[in-house]
Amino acid sequence: MDVHTTPPEPTLLEGLATTRAIRRYTDRAVTDSELATVLWHATRAPSGSNRQPFRFLVLRDGPRSRAARALLAQAAHDVWSTKRTSDGYDTGSGTDPTSLKSRLAATLQQYADHVADAPVIVLAGLVRYRPPGPLEGASVYPACQNLLLAARAVGLGGVLTQLHALVEDDLRPILAVPDDVGLHATITLGEPAGRHGPVRRRPLAELVYEDAWGDPAAWAVDPPGTRFTQAGPPTR
Amino acid sequence: MDVHTTPPEPTLLEGLATTRAIRRYTDRAVTDSELATVLWHATRAPSGSNRQPFRFLVLRDGPRSRAARALLAQAAHDVWSTKRTSDGYDTGSGTDPTSLKSRLAATLQQYADHVADAPVIVLAGLVRYRPPGPLEGASVYPACQNLLLAARAVGLGGVLTQLHALVEDDLRPILAVPDDVGLHATITLGEPAGRHGPVRRRPLAELVYEDAWGDPAAWAVDPPGTRFTQAGPPTR
Repeated sequence: MDVHTTPPEPTLLEGLATTRAIRRYTDRAVTDSELATVLWHATRAPSGSNRQPFRFLVLRDGPRSRAARALLAQAAHDVWSTKRTSDGYDTGSGTDPTSLKSRLAATLQQYADHVADAPVIVLAGLVRYRPPGPLEGASVYPACQNLLLAARAVGLGGVLTQLHALVEDDLRPILAVPDDVGLHATITLGEPAGRHGPVRRRPLAELVYEDAWGDPAAWAVDPPGTRFTQAGPPTR
Repeated sequence: MDVHTTPPEPTLLEGLATTRAIRRYTDRAVTDSELATVLWHATRAPSGSNRQPFRFLVLRDGPRSRAARALLAQAAHDVWSTKRTSDGYDTGSGTDPTSLKSRLAATLQQYADHVADAPVIVLAGLVRYRPPGPLEGASVYPACQNLLLAARAVGLGGVLTQLHALVEDDLRPILAVPDDVGLHATITLGEPAGRHGPVRRRPLAELVYEDAWGDPAAWAVDPPGTRFTQAGPPTR
């Protein structure tokens, strides 16, 4: 019996603590109602002067979506092939199939192979009113994070990538993206498949300072049970 | 009687829907425990390849913090003086003290006058491993949004600004910020003072498309009771 049950909605702090990148999805379609909930909560995020320059383009099975998916699949294949080598996924503990590195490599390979089949792909854009710069993301990435958190709340999962950047020249005309719009994220969404692990981060004391850069904050202590990781890909 | 009571924690979706910019704070100090909770949840956010390049520098009342606060106060004064004119806050409905525009102007003036007194100021930084670019914010602004949401969860409020950018040359040496670190946000935090209004955004249909840029998504409908606003500052 294949009954879809919605898990209970987490509290706000539980949601922040347990939302993690989800790269494998079941075949279940994401419903219109789920999309409305996820996108509406995404757009509650703040932006500079509340200009709301963020826009979300949802790709499902329309004609342009299918063409865009094919381009993004090529991008995923290319970026993973490069990353597999440059980040050393096939060396060291990567040769042990039970290692964390090997399991991550398998997940990323699977993602590259199936990204075009994700139930939903959302492109996040920013309507620019000034020249591009490193701070402009303040008006689009908070909304992307809200999107991923809202997905978690309704039992979906996703991951923020920048796959569009590798095929942007071909992608923009297909999707009729105007010249004054920056594309900032390619987010895949779907119902999570299988089990997935905890959020792993560096110890809080490595990420938080007080009064001056690098100065320890005495209160910056991780709660019991926190799972740690080294920063970055395996070779770092 | 001045008893501090913590409101019940919202659900994840409630939190996303009701977290808004809070610019006025009571005099109550933010506790170490609150800071630990807020920063820990901030650092659960995703980043590219889980590199976790985000860093948070917390300013309270240390010697460098006081110097930084004075600089940020000057920046706030300058930016608001400019904005008040360029965005037309003193014209049109801005001459009616009961208008939304006038009330926003009063809030922003109050913020500029008191930003140096915010219970906590958090600077968000990004340890760069490649040249600055418009997509790098994907690895720091999701954590900033988590920070603001976690603040909401524990009964605090805050607002993300880029005040540091106006005084960055003076600020960086005071706080010993290394050259390879980009400063991406200045976030003020405290216990909210007074009542504050709902989150106001443009109708969802203006922000969400399907299959091609500008194409309507039939399901992109706002829930009942949603409060709308025009995008951007009053003159737009």
